[in-house]
Amino acid sequence: MDPDAVAKAFVDHYYSTFDTNRAGLANLYQESSMLTFEGQKIQGSPNIVAKLTSLPFQQCKHSITTVDCQPSGPAGGMLVFVSGNLQISGEQHALKFSQMFHLMPTPQSSFYVLNDIFRLNYA
Amino acid sequence: MDPDAVAKAFVDHYYSTFDTNRAGLANLYQESSMLTFEGQKIQGSPNIVAKLTSLPFQQCKHSITTVDCQPSGPAGGMLVFVSGNLQISGEQHALKFSQMFHLMPTPQSSFYVLNDIFRLNYA
Repeated sequence: MDPDAVAKAFVDHYYSTFDTNRAGLANLYQESSMLTFEGQKIQGSPNIVAKLTSLPFQQCKHSITTVDCQPSGPAGGMLVFVSGNLQISGEQHALKFSQMFHLMPTPQSSFYVLNDIFRLNYA
Repeated sequence: MDPDAVAKAFVDHYYSTFDTNRAGLANLYQESSMLTFEGQKIQGSPNIVAKLTSLPFQQCKHSITTVDCQPSGPAGGMLVFVSGNLQISGEQHALKFSQMFHLMPTPQSSFYVLNDIFRLNYA
């Protein structure tokens, strides 16, 4: 299993789900999952999805610029570091963002998001 | 121990060391440590420090904009996510950057950097 390919597949899946069906992200988080969104700390899949679905825009499109990944230690986790642009419908300019995910393996040989930190990069 | 205070102290120490004595960063990495610098993967404290000390500028100054942190799981690790500006001496404009660290505890009740991913955020 090529970690870079797994990271790329996760990133494609995550942002295409975000852009088409934000509530569908619930499957990627668990009760122990943590999101820090622009400094606000949120824990647990239901709370995280409530936050993401209540963001004050209906439609958006993420465009990914870079994806980096590293194994995070003996537990089989993977760190994924993303930079890109976020175009919100009705806004003239895209916003730059950086985001990191810590993916942990599930018994079903998949991954869930244990850690998620998101920041806009203001110019 | 307040994780946010630990993250802030680490960040202050890391960048002040980077800006005054880059070779001194060797103590923060171990043989298992990984750095991905602008997409280039480097492993082990000596190789990481060789990379950082060979960057093509003599003097620089990091200014930190945001620091976010989360515990990374049962092994006692901590994820630290940083955004800021990097002013290189002789350059007119500062560069924006994002960087993440995965800190792991040492037997001496300190931390070392297991994972380090750095990216410039081009405007």
